Amino acid sequence: MSTAAVIIIGNEILSGRTRDANLPFLGKRLAELGINLLEVSIIPDDEQTIINTVNQYRQRFTYVFTTGGIGPTHDDISTVSVAKAFNIPLEINSEAVGYLENYYEAGTINNARLKMAHIPVGATLIKNPISAAPGFQLENVFVLPGVPEIIQAMFDGISDRLVGGPPVLTRTIATDLRESILAEGLEIIQNQYPEVAIGSYPYFRMGRLGVNLVMRSTLSANLDRVYKDIECLIHQLGGEIISAE
Amino acid sequence: MSTAAVIIIGNEILSGRTRDANLPFLGKRLAELGINLLEVSIIPDDEQTIINTVNQYRQRFTYVFTTGGIGPTHDDISTVSVAKAFNIPLEINSEAVGYLENYYEAGTINNARLKMAHIPVGATLIKNPISAAPGFQLENVFVLPGVPEIIQAMFDGISDRLVGGPPVLTRTIATDLRESILAEGLEIIQNQYPEVAIGSYPYFRMGRLGVNLVMRSTLSANLDRVYKDIECLIHQLGGEIISAE
Repeated sequence: MSTAAVIIIGNEILSGRTRDANLPFLGKRLAELGINLLEVSIIPDDEQTIINTVNQYRQRFTYVFTTGGIGPTHDDISTVSVAKAFNIPLEINSEAVGYLENYYEAGTINNARLKMAHIPVGATLIKNPISAAPGFQLENVFVLPGVPEIIQAMFDGISDRLVGGPPVLTRTIATDLRESILAEGLEIIQNQYPEVAIGSYPYFRMGRLGVNLVMRSTLSANLDRVYKDIECLIHQLGGEIISAE
Repeated sequence: MSTAAVIIIGNEILSGRTRDANLPFLGKRLAELGINLLEVSIIPDDEQTIINTVNQYRQRFTYVFTTGGIGPTHDDISTVSVAKAFNIPLEINSEAVGYLENYYEAGTINNARLKMAHIPVGATLIKNPISAAPGFQLENVFVLPGVPEIIQAMFDGISDRLVGGPPVLTRTIATDLRESILAEGLEIIQNQYPEVAIGSYPYFRMGRLGVNLVMRSTLSANLDRVYKDIECLIHQLGGEIISAE
């Protein structure tokens, strides 16, 4: 199965100021494509850290996605850092310049805007339908911006470059039973169906604890069986099903 | 300066199903304590991956926090994995049993509940004021649950074990100017005040791009100077200040 990792580059996420919104999107889209997202790293805008993380991940995973740090300001260092990870120089990419010229008013391409057309030699561009400045792909590494709306608009342009497998299907049941009441029965079901990953996630809402039981598998028949078994387990234990999907 | 890393353990975050809410909390609290959060890793419920990440991080950072996977179900493997990372066995911790006995009705401590009192030998417990099952500290590694409300309630119990520095102060200005218009002036200010980290974060709202400019420093006088300089820069460039704090 194809695997993936995401590198979220940005001091603003580490400071707790900005809540990342790209991982929920990428996690879901990769699951639909049957690509197994195995690791995410959130790192600061620091060149050596970016170089090390990119070089480690591109060996370990089929696909690597970076988010953030490809804009025009002094703290946007992802492009130059990824290029250094590959030991490839930057060049002014004429296709990228064309996108910027189409987008900005004539004569307003200043140095900061031109910075966004500096792309590693040999990279394949990723079109940005919202604000023109492109991302790029270098071997198995996809370099994307940080703004969620822009990543989402760009992702359709790269999904046909990704080779996945059967999509990972998901079902969820929420119940008012405590995890410690469910644990024994859940483990028996899990051992019976090792090809369905059963996750148990407690939550705390309106002063009460509940549990989301999440089943994930590429095999829909087995997923249905596990769903039914868990439904019966909750019933037998005297619990209520709060929601199911 | 003290440094920190967070290991978020959980398939539910990688699948995109659950949006992590702990990093925004931990990032802010660590900044207040003057501890520099340098890296976050999101990894699956996989023993070897947990062991490797814990062992790598506890060498590299002053403090390591793990979240998730210390409950009673089959997919809760953080405690046993962290113990293996330290090569320390688990034992039934009598103090932890006491907490559970106080919390649950008499005679209802089943095996699943008792699992939450299996703690590595020599670990210091972290009290859980909400649902009794404690976290624990082993050297510089703090093992916490995944439910945000519980982590938040537990954190006050460990903050006095952490040695930080002066708190990192933050100011933010949002403007309607484009990053590419601001870039040159921002870089001049950044070079003048290297001890203030200036971040530029574009956002897309109601169909329009804007920028949040975030200044972070432990030095309040320099922070105020940078704030004033950025205010003037926006004014000179004909921009509007949408919000400031």
